[in-house]
Amino acid sequence: MTSHDTVRAIRWHGDALELLDQRVLPGIEQYLRYEQAKDVADAITDMVVRGAPAIGITAAYAIVLAAQAAQRQGAENWHEQLDDELQYLAQSRPTAVNLFWAIDRMRDCLQEKNIEALEQLAIRIHQEDFKANTTMGNFGAELIPQDTAVYTHCNTGSLATGGYGTALGVIRSAFQQGRIEHVYAGETRPWLQGARLTAWELMRDDIPVSLVVEGAAGQLLRDKNVSWIIVGADRICLNGDVANKIGTYNLAVLAKHHGIKFMVAAPTTTIDVKTKTGSDIPIEERGASEVTTLRDQQIAPDNCHAVNPVFDVTPAELIDCIVTERGCIMNPHTAAVESHMQELAQ
Amino acid sequence: MTSHDTVRAIRWHGDALELLDQRVLPGIEQYLRYEQAKDVADAITDMVVRGAPAIGITAAYAIVLAAQAAQRQGAENWHEQLDDELQYLAQSRPTAVNLFWAIDRMRDCLQEKNIEALEQLAIRIHQEDFKANTTMGNFGAELIPQDTAVYTHCNTGSLATGGYGTALGVIRSAFQQGRIEHVYAGETRPWLQGARLTAWELMRDDIPVSLVVEGAAGQLLRDKNVSWIIVGADRICLNGDVANKIGTYNLAVLAKHHGIKFMVAAPTTTIDVKTKTGSDIPIEERGASEVTTLRDQQIAPDNCHAVNPVFDVTPAELIDCIVTERGCIMNPHTAAVESHMQELAQ
Repeated sequence: MTSHDTVRAIRWHGDALELLDQRVLPGIEQYLRYEQAKDVADAITDMVVRGAPAIGITAAYAIVLAAQAAQRQGAENWHEQLDDELQYLAQSRPTAVNLFWAIDRMRDCLQEKNIEALEQLAIRIHQEDFKANTTMGNFGAELIPQDTAVYTHCNTGSLATGGYGTALGVIRSAFQQGRIEHVYAGETRPWLQGARLTAWELMRDDIPVSLVVEGAAGQLLRDKNVSWIIVGADRICLNGDVANKIGTYNLAVLAKHHGIKFMVAAPTTTIDVKTKTGSDIPIEERGASEVTTLRDQQIAPDNCHAVNPVFDVTPAELIDCIVTERGCIMNPHTAAVESHMQELAQ
Repeated sequence: MTSHDTVRAIRWHGDALELLDQRVLPGIEQYLRYEQAKDVADAITDMVVRGAPAIGITAAYAIVLAAQAAQRQGAENWHEQLDDELQYLAQSRPTAVNLFWAIDRMRDCLQEKNIEALEQLAIRIHQEDFKANTTMGNFGAELIPQDTAVYTHCNTGSLATGGYGTALGVIRSAFQQGRIEHVYAGETRPWLQGARLTAWELMRDDIPVSLVVEGAAGQLLRDKNVSWIIVGADRICLNGDVANKIGTYNLAVLAKHHGIKFMVAAPTTTIDVKTKTGSDIPIEERGASEVTTLRDQQIAPDNCHAVNPVFDVTPAELIDCIVTERGCIMNPHTAAVESHMQELAQ
């Protein structure tokens, strides 16, 4: 598939979960081991693992850990004793809908009182995400013209998913097909997912990548051979509005201004038909210190106020294509998203 | 004028120049002392001092130091022995035109062979810049509606000029007039002038400021009460195109999309009528390490490629107003800029 083994953000060991600590990449490659669901929830909050699909998969495994612990207590109704842990997990991050989707699916399975079935479901959620990525990668790649550059934001690769990636999956597939000659990766402040994670993943796969500050995007879109901006999503609304990493909306406006196409790649588990429009999405605001410091190094004055919304909403009218494992939704709007999801339900 | 003494980036001592080391602000406030023109040129290249007007002033004082040294050698034609040093100074940074303007003005004065006159001219260049700032501050402030927020980029304050500031001068004046209720400062990667310098200057003056990552600009312009984006300039062309810190062009596109006004504040010394359009401006590209590291801390993988153009060009059609010490050029275009500069020449 690629010249290196694909990196795995999430490793399941039957009675423990290992997460690659994404806070210290690329300098340190270190897996942290978890045996308690609550610790996994804290790891999601603290961004040991991040990326909407990866958060959903991680939560599914956390529920297996919680169920195993409850069953060990020996109570007949162990499957009813997980409410607190499920609620704590659901509060770990507010914006990515995959978290709630995975919790709901696992909660339904809990009724069976079958811990093996629960574990198998978590593994299936993980495997299905990987498969969805490779499928949407091929659908998305078909839209990329030969010998062009693409621009991407944040990290949407193996690290953010069950493996392969959403936007980065499209880029991987398109590169393998010889369509992409260069990738520009925006560094993605404040957390630098582009610099630390995307550049690292692409370099491992020998895909030519240049890192740029986000301020350089406009001039680059104007002057370089960029055909598509390709991003992931944390939640896609019924009307096609997309919540994604802060900075995505800037890029969508810049794409429109320059006549460059804008693609959102995400599995259908990221589409939330219960959220009608972008204004209904809770946008996580994180601490000012993520802006005023960098890895504990202070970069702003003492007591400097900072605003740190970590997601933004891109309206559907700025999006040319939403690609999922079911295919492409061109010029997304409510009826198109509804129809895409109904096909899935059949 | 303000609640604190205005900070001075440049201090002249008759036989030496002191520069506030802007590379280590806000953590360390330290002046570096220079007695050789060549060392001053290196300080400009290394960004001990930055900001187009401040670079011009610094170069003027450097030429005084060079002339003093040449005169001390005792040669009759000392004023003709400065060509190498003037050329070295001119090569310190390529984009800001104030550097070349100051060198040309000082070179003309050299013909008088009068070292006191040369020193007085450097001091006058410094004083005139300060005066121009306060004057344009008032012109620009008149355009800001009451009780609105503004957004600014990079640092255009006392640190970037002879004192007071260009865009930050407009903001200072408008705040004193009670027009501005809040300032959003973009952090300005890669060098973080917004986080390190603008937030620091505004906090010293008790002007309410929130620091934001550049990716947050679009959502903020959509959701907050921002009336104007106000930026400085490194070079303004005859047709009104503006070279300024990378990220400026993004903001101009975002402003247009959201119906928010876009102002460029700069002294007429930044207007270069010999540069017809933006495509004629040399755009400085600095080393990749400015993007891949932060204060010697590596944030990207080893050997990661990065593109680092440190300026971009905003076309005149995205600019609502260029304000100088002579007044406002609304909807700038060649005839308007020409007429503005001819008035000056009279």
